[in-house]
Amino acid sequence: MTPDRIYLDWNATAPLAAAARAAVHHALDTVGNPSSIHTEGRQARAIVDQARQDLADAVGADPMEVTFTSGATESAALTLAGRDLQSAAIEHDCISAWTHTTLSVDTVGRVTVPDPARSCLQAANGETGVLQTLPSGIAVSDATQAFGKIPLRAARDAASQLLLSAHKIGGPKGVGAIVGQLDEDGHFRIRGGGQEFGRRSGTENIAGIAGFGAASRMAAAQVRDGIWQELQALRDRLEVLLQEVAGTVVLIGAGPERLPNTTCFALPGWKGSTQVIEMDLAGYAISAGSACASGKVAPSSALRAMRVPDEIAECSVRISLGPGIIWPQLEAFATEWGRKSRRRVQEAGAAGASP
Amino acid sequence: MTPDRIYLDWNATAPLAAAARAAVHHALDTVGNPSSIHTEGRQARAIVDQARQDLADAVGADPMEVTFTSGATESAALTLAGRDLQSAAIEHDCISAWTHTTLSVDTVGRVTVPDPARSCLQAANGETGVLQTLPSGIAVSDATQAFGKIPLRAARDAASQLLLSAHKIGGPKGVGAIVGQLDEDGHFRIRGGGQEFGRRSGTENIAGIAGFGAASRMAAAQVRDGIWQELQALRDRLEVLLQEVAGTVVLIGAGPERLPNTTCFALPGWKGSTQVIEMDLAGYAISAGSACASGKVAPSSALRAMRVPDEIAECSVRISLGPGIIWPQLEAFATEWGRKSRRRVQEAGAAGASP
Repeated sequence: MTPDRIYLDWNATAPLAAAARAAVHHALDTVGNPSSIHTEGRQARAIVDQARQDLADAVGADPMEVTFTSGATESAALTLAGRDLQSAAIEHDCISAWTHTTLSVDTVGRVTVPDPARSCLQAANGETGVLQTLPSGIAVSDATQAFGKIPLRAARDAASQLLLSAHKIGGPKGVGAIVGQLDEDGHFRIRGGGQEFGRRSGTENIAGIAGFGAASRMAAAQVRDGIWQELQALRDRLEVLLQEVAGTVVLIGAGPERLPNTTCFALPGWKGSTQVIEMDLAGYAISAGSACASGKVAPSSALRAMRVPDEIAECSVRISLGPGIIWPQLEAFATEWGRKSRRRVQEAGAAGASP
Repeated sequence: MTPDRIYLDWNATAPLAAAARAAVHHALDTVGNPSSIHTEGRQARAIVDQARQDLADAVGADPMEVTFTSGATESAALTLAGRDLQSAAIEHDCISAWTHTTLSVDTVGRVTVPDPARSCLQAANGETGVLQTLPSGIAVSDATQAFGKIPLRAARDAASQLLLSAHKIGGPKGVGAIVGQLDEDGHFRIRGGGQEFGRRSGTENIAGIAGFGAASRMAAAQVRDGIWQELQALRDRLEVLLQEVAGTVVLIGAGPERLPNTTCFALPGWKGSTQVIEMDLAGYAISAGSACASGKVAPSSALRAMRVPDEIAECSVRISLGPGIIWPQLEAFATEWGRKSRRRVQEAGAAGASP
């Protein structure tokens, strides 16, 4: 990232945290295969064990309940395949791929769960930030966006299995976890050498796992230290300023409790994908919809499920903040975005006035 | 790895190569999600694209034929699940988990394949180093141990799908690939955001992929440059010296063509697992059997398939070399191993003589 860029897309992926970078660099230079019994193997094994402990501590679990995977998408496949669980259409594609998206969503994005034991419900939505109150005994919860931004205790207590990803909390991309029971004989397993207590085979991504462990420890400390409340204050202030500079901003999902760092808003008449490109040229990274498919720009299924009208949904963008972002950056963003939005309105007016 | 250690277990995992380390470090500090359309996203995408090209070039494939995974074990699951292919019992556990191990193996470790289109056959065995002549039209070949040690052209021409891993060639652990066709609708897929041309979803492990690309480029150059012939000469010289220092060494799989870096040998009466521990204490990392399960020390299925008697198989160890290893290190190993082996024989003799 060049220094003059302002990155406001932390829900897509967070920059690597310094603690995670150090852990990854160290693990990269640890030679052994964790399955080898010699010194080098045991050194690699110790890295995995420590990371497992750190992640368990961060989410309030026992290390034996942690299964490392290649990311939340794999976690979802291992956890959900063949179980015919219900979910809502606001879930990430990696969840809806394996579930029946029949649960009802209200217009502010909250989901009703009649049968928790047969259902999957996210802790927080990545696009709107809307939090769910997880019913006790819910089978699976995708906590990818919540982890590291809010305390996970409630989700941990409510859900039998939590799905997590490292790169949303300042760890490296390509590593995730399942927290909770996972038997060896599920519908969909990666079989072979019997790593991860026989639940998920394959030589461990020890550098990624080390980075995930370090990021978990850091993220838990940041949540305790109130860093995200400060970001929430910035987010709230930004939303006020956006209204001021554009007048007609539609805030989406702003009613219920939300992630502290996320705002989803629309400026009718200015397509979200165009906003992303124009603001990118101006030096700001924001997103339209969720960044989960190669270059795909499709209407957000989450906003559709909330019955946001298409002409609003297609003009929505998401800004998501992270530690280190300061008010002048957001003020600069809002100023530039406001200038572009007014030009857009003028151009639309001029086009309407011409014959 | 401490400087006084000598690592002779490259088939379990190779130390990270300098070129791969540099690529991983650079990618770790690339902020974006490759699915994001802003500048940071496109920078991350470019890293994945370059690595895909590098890997394709290294194996003589089209980049569109490369699907990145979390390792060869996942590659095997995605490629083999639900296909009921035949294989031989010498395959890695991640292959035999999905195949019928009915193909016959001769006593030197060579496999007969009556129906290539319905079969899976490794290019090289990780424990003995024995190479297979892949029949044209073979469905799947695990080229994990062959890649980066011998030219892959013949395997590429013969097999519809090749399975590869980064950490065996000096890349990071936790990244692999499938080279060949892989449809979206296979029996076993990781579904979601549609990454990897829709074949394998999940935010890409861009640091791992970058390291794999760099390692592939380096490995292909090393094969061209003849580095492995030099290692083969060291390996052959080591085998002669082991015979000299112990007298009774049984070389396993030494008849047919082998990987240039691998030797598998047994000293009857001295268990392999004990050899590994004793030599580890003396500063040498070697292995008994394949390092693929958490701490598991079980009789090698490969040696069993070759009808190596149990009393030989359980006393076997594997040494596998890699670039940078020099003769004085192997000479020191053989000297130390020979001293321990003679003590072992004396103790066994003394124990036999005592009442």
